[in-house]
Amino acid sequence: MISERMKPLVNNNSAIRMMFEEGKRLTAIYGKENVFDFSLGNPSIPAPIEVNKAIHKVIDEESTFLLHGYMNNAGFEDVRHAVADFVNEQHGTDFDENNIIMTVGAAGALNVILKTIINPNDEVITFAPYFLEYNTYVKNYDGILKAISPDTKTFQPNLEEFEKSITKNTKAIIINSPNNPTGVVYSEDTIKAISKILHNKQIEYNSKIVIIADEPYRELAYDNVFVPYIPNYYDNTIVCYSYSKSLSLPGDRIGYMVIPNKLYENDKVFTAAAIANRTLGFVNAPSLIQRVLKHTLRNTSDIYSYDKNRKKLYEELTSYGFECVKPEGAFYLFMKSPIADEKVFCESAKKYNILMVSGSSFECAGFVRIAYCVAYETIERALPMFKKLADEYGLQGCDSK
Amino acid sequence: MISERMKPLVNNNSAIRMMFEEGKRLTAIYGKENVFDFSLGNPSIPAPIEVNKAIHKVIDEESTFLLHGYMNNAGFEDVRHAVADFVNEQHGTDFDENNIIMTVGAAGALNVILKTIINPNDEVITFAPYFLEYNTYVKNYDGILKAISPDTKTFQPNLEEFEKSITKNTKAIIINSPNNPTGVVYSEDTIKAISKILHNKQIEYNSKIVIIADEPYRELAYDNVFVPYIPNYYDNTIVCYSYSKSLSLPGDRIGYMVIPNKLYENDKVFTAAAIANRTLGFVNAPSLIQRVLKHTLRNTSDIYSYDKNRKKLYEELTSYGFECVKPEGAFYLFMKSPIADEKVFCESAKKYNILMVSGSSFECAGFVRIAYCVAYETIERALPMFKKLADEYGLQGCDSK
Repeated sequence: MISERMKPLVNNNSAIRMMFEEGKRLTAIYGKENVFDFSLGNPSIPAPIEVNKAIHKVIDEESTFLLHGYMNNAGFEDVRHAVADFVNEQHGTDFDENNIIMTVGAAGALNVILKTIINPNDEVITFAPYFLEYNTYVKNYDGILKAISPDTKTFQPNLEEFEKSITKNTKAIIINSPNNPTGVVYSEDTIKAISKILHNKQIEYNSKIVIIADEPYRELAYDNVFVPYIPNYYDNTIVCYSYSKSLSLPGDRIGYMVIPNKLYENDKVFTAAAIANRTLGFVNAPSLIQRVLKHTLRNTSDIYSYDKNRKKLYEELTSYGFECVKPEGAFYLFMKSPIADEKVFCESAKKYNILMVSGSSFECAGFVRIAYCVAYETIERALPMFKKLADEYGLQGCDSK
Repeated sequence: MISERMKPLVNNNSAIRMMFEEGKRLTAIYGKENVFDFSLGNPSIPAPIEVNKAIHKVIDEESTFLLHGYMNNAGFEDVRHAVADFVNEQHGTDFDENNIIMTVGAAGALNVILKTIINPNDEVITFAPYFLEYNTYVKNYDGILKAISPDTKTFQPNLEEFEKSITKNTKAIIINSPNNPTGVVYSEDTIKAISKILHNKQIEYNSKIVIIADEPYRELAYDNVFVPYIPNYYDNTIVCYSYSKSLSLPGDRIGYMVIPNKLYENDKVFTAAAIANRTLGFVNAPSLIQRVLKHTLRNTSDIYSYDKNRKKLYEELTSYGFECVKPEGAFYLFMKSPIADEKVFCESAKKYNILMVSGSSFECAGFVRIAYCVAYETIERALPMFKKLADEYGLQGCDSK
């Protein structure tokens, strides 16, 4: 009954399910407070209070047809205008409503733009480690995803390999910074270098290569790190943004896509993307939360909480002798496994009720992802367990020096 | 820049846009109250007051993580359970939460189920006239949509042609009753006959053929007409439901899919459909409106208003000499064009500021669709114009007999 294309996804899903079941099993035995589940990238801090206030407000003040009715497939014009204004303030751009399409989150935006520009066998490049769902999204439109192997020292993109990998069939590059799973922010030098390479390759192949900037973690950046806004560096850029993390609204499915005027054939891309939004079955981004957004664009969740978790976890884990690049964004820490096979390491961690995701799930073996979007208390209680895990592997921490 | 698959959709879109622009042009000249736009299938009656009340309620009472957080890709378990209970009450079924997947409207549900079961070159059959977007949905997954030609006397499916059209490659039948664009409800005899044909064909080809029941108009049925619930007649049925019309919530993008236990490999289909919901980029149906639904399942918009429009329009138009099958559901009336080329007829109607959609847009030339989801006053003001249109074509109405 199941289509051939879905079969591998169903098989693959059982791994995620097993992790989830393992969490439930451990919780049943040891109690919720003694299980340290760092496996899920699910916001642990609530939506800012302004969101629910704005919902009450729009329900009381706006017409039911506006709140619940159809609008242009691109979204409400006034909401798109407000989003454009705010992006302009943040990044010195000059967008207006004709550059913004409201979408069903960043996942919706990515599918819409891939449908819009990808022909069968077109190549899409991304940098490992990466969110493996990109494979599925690209395959949905019969494209081919090529992953550039990681620079495991810095987790900045490996630019030499990147340059060599671009062919006449390369249609798009997906860039995800701040990055899932490393927490690394790609530096301005990196973005400039990528832009230059693409600029030259476009000339060499007489082609157009689009950067798709997947930016659900843009607002989650710490230590005043600069997160370059890619449309300011490279013309053929499309930004896919989500409010899932910045406003802790993952269930509401709300985001947007930026299609700058400088993008080649931007008018046609805008029209086609709005149609793709309809024909893929999204039709439009949910109407009520669009209306709400207009009032909460300047809010974010309490990102300080994530930062506190990040600092504590990074300091302690490295003091135990674990190695990892200091994350500057998102809510992930990508730790080196003390042994080559990180899956075995993940299994060992389960003895201490610690759940982490294997780096192989992001095409980067030898590492594990720790999602620190959890309560601070969970981190505090988990740390002695991490210490035991470090001891088990004979790591030499600062304490033992 | 635009993918080859999107190009025809972009070209096709200009026709819809032209109709929209024509409405704007006429409104600018004659004023809104003198333009009779029957071209859009957009609910004209507000969402029931219970919807906004329930929004206030859940915002005040439920946790922000529940309202705005991720849940299972299939939707909230309690909401799915409540939906199942209500469907059981209505139709004597025995569904539970494991038979329901919440979706981004019926458009989302259709895309998810087609992704789940369609292999390239699988055939999907539907009955003309039909919502042409089905073509796009089926093509999204490289299936082939075959339309059975209409029985223009009754607009019940042409079963003889249907039976002959089924091949070993037939994977699904899309049934849309109450129907867009005819307003006809497929009778119990029709559904029984279709079920019997499919039953036999499944044996003949040793295949599984799924009925996809696209039911956004189920609640919009008049004169106590019986709308057969297809899972009660045919095991391999999947229902795609939407609250866009029944609760006037088209912008909120909320619906569900029913995967009955009797469906072949129902467990696998459920799992695969939940995954497809994620991987197509929907991820889950919008969370807040799911929470709201639990409180408003038993409400509908003021469907009486549509019924009033229907009766008035049908009585008057037929009295002027126009011919059409009396619609029993949805909010459409499918009228025979007095001349073979209904596009010319539509152009004539524009002289009287009447906008209708050509039947060719539903693969049924010689007819026009009148969407009567408009204010009653619009109908009252439009009728003298329809009378002039009838006179122009020399129709012999009851008045002139």
